[in-house]
Amino acid sequence: MVGGIDLGGAKVQAAVLDDDHRPMGEARHPTPTQGGPEAIAEAMAAALEEAAQSAGVELAKLDGAGACSPGDVDSERGIVANAHNLVGWGDTSFGLGEDLARRLGVRVRVSNDVNAATFGELRLGAGRPYESLLGVFWGTGVGGGIVLDGRIWSGRGAAGEIGHTLVKIGGARCSCGNHGPMEAHARAEHDKGRKTKLFKLMKERERPRVTSGIWERALDEGDELAAELMKRAVEAVGAGIGSAVNLLDVQAVIVGGGMGLRFFERFREDISKAMHEHLFDRDHPPELHVAELGDLGGAIGASLLLDEDV
Amino acid sequence: MVGGIDLGGAKVQAAVLDDDHRPMGEARHPTPTQGGPEAIAEAMAAALEEAAQSAGVELAKLDGAGACSPGDVDSERGIVANAHNLVGWGDTSFGLGEDLARRLGVRVRVSNDVNAATFGELRLGAGRPYESLLGVFWGTGVGGGIVLDGRIWSGRGAAGEIGHTLVKIGGARCSCGNHGPMEAHARAEHDKGRKTKLFKLMKERERPRVTSGIWERALDEGDELAAELMKRAVEAVGAGIGSAVNLLDVQAVIVGGGMGLRFFERFREDISKAMHEHLFDRDHPPELHVAELGDLGGAIGASLLLDEDV
Repeated sequence: MVGGIDLGGAKVQAAVLDDDHRPMGEARHPTPTQGGPEAIAEAMAAALEEAAQSAGVELAKLDGAGACSPGDVDSERGIVANAHNLVGWGDTSFGLGEDLARRLGVRVRVSNDVNAATFGELRLGAGRPYESLLGVFWGTGVGGGIVLDGRIWSGRGAAGEIGHTLVKIGGARCSCGNHGPMEAHARAEHDKGRKTKLFKLMKERERPRVTSGIWERALDEGDELAAELMKRAVEAVGAGIGSAVNLLDVQAVIVGGGMGLRFFERFREDISKAMHEHLFDRDHPPELHVAELGDLGGAIGASLLLDEDV
Repeated sequence: MVGGIDLGGAKVQAAVLDDDHRPMGEARHPTPTQGGPEAIAEAMAAALEEAAQSAGVELAKLDGAGACSPGDVDSERGIVANAHNLVGWGDTSFGLGEDLARRLGVRVRVSNDVNAATFGELRLGAGRPYESLLGVFWGTGVGGGIVLDGRIWSGRGAAGEIGHTLVKIGGARCSCGNHGPMEAHARAEHDKGRKTKLFKLMKERERPRVTSGIWERALDEGDELAAELMKRAVEAVGAGIGSAVNLLDVQAVIVGGGMGLRFFERFREDISKAMHEHLFDRDHPPELHVAELGDLGGAIGASLLLDEDV
């Protein structure tokens, strides 16, 4: 059995998987917002320990653990830097691999979260039929994972910035598909006196940020501002996919991430339409799928990468 | 010795190269605008014959000829389709490889023009030090060639559409970096009564379109409309490069094409600045170079591809 740990801006998800990569136990912990990288690493280890308990296996019996993280990940050395959506990890680098290996007592390999989730989909999820694909993970940000000829392409380490392919000539960068900016837009409009249920729902649910569930509830209740911002986000995500496809001409696009998983079916037609509008070769669009591994995709992908040279 | 033929919207360039890929003879013919694909293939064969004569070698003695073309190229079958900037070839497909082989009496391999020029730069030009690069060919259009791990990435055949990564959310596609649209913009402004020397120069030089040389002369003479449109084009090219680099994270970008070769040094700072403005990771920009093989790059690259499985 192996372990997989997915470190996200809001939560840590861990799973213990059998030899067929089936989850035998899983656990979720909130990502600490105090204590910096060490507190976060502690939470990651605790989540995997809990997953191991629920699978009925001792941590030390695992063949190893794959962890994935946002930010700049140096898999060779297990170091993570510039993880701006983790509190206290934005301007520092931390030896996550070594720290986790000490806490867990097994070997650990750290990889980039988007690459891990994309690789998981390639091997075990919606990407199985393809050799080339783009994984689009729409959550706190919008990240892209690239598979070409059956392998992850990560460039010099920073490939896949799909959220930032959305440019406006002569104007500001548009990254309105990102969850963070969506919330910021909503906050700014709200402060200007615009009515919205988003922040009332956030208080009721005692959440520190507008989660995908809160967006969904607001949409269901007919919140106009939420609908307007979601429309822009869906257009931006679709346009980003279209631009990336124009450049890479991959066979398939797989959409995941917290927002992606929650809203793909609801906005499938809109995402597809926005993509088509930006495609150069409209006669050969890529296949469009939702991520099959769901929110455990990062942890599963990270465990798959334990013995891969990606 | 081998032959190389580069089919462009305005001209056909041919070269005969020795075993070290040095041009021993070359020739240029205007691209026929009447007679469709067959007339164009005839001009391609005539250009290579002239290049062979100037190299002092018989055509039949060549080891083969590599040809490159715009449009959708099926290298396996030697078929070129949808070559919209060739008159009479936009809505049809033509077996260029077979036709040329019959005319020349040697084996022929047809490849995509941008891929050929990018491959030439990788092997013999400014791309020699790199394993991953983006070739940006700014001419009648803006085309991108992608090299990853030392190999051309062409997706399902249509990768590299960098000119179309330039999108404007909620608005029209912006392809103002393209030469054709630049001329169209100039024409529209001129028709509205705006002063410009562009069309006077075009008439004087008896050219059917505003060539890169005409743009240069107009800029040198202080033509305001030319300067304004050039500024927009340079911004669009830089933005397109930045977006592609965000996605691919390549080591280097090599700029060629008629407009690129003529204007790279003049606007190097502006192109670099526009690229930087759109980069996500501004601390690690790629190296930026002008194409070293000049306007023979396509023909040389096509000859290199004769025996490559790309």
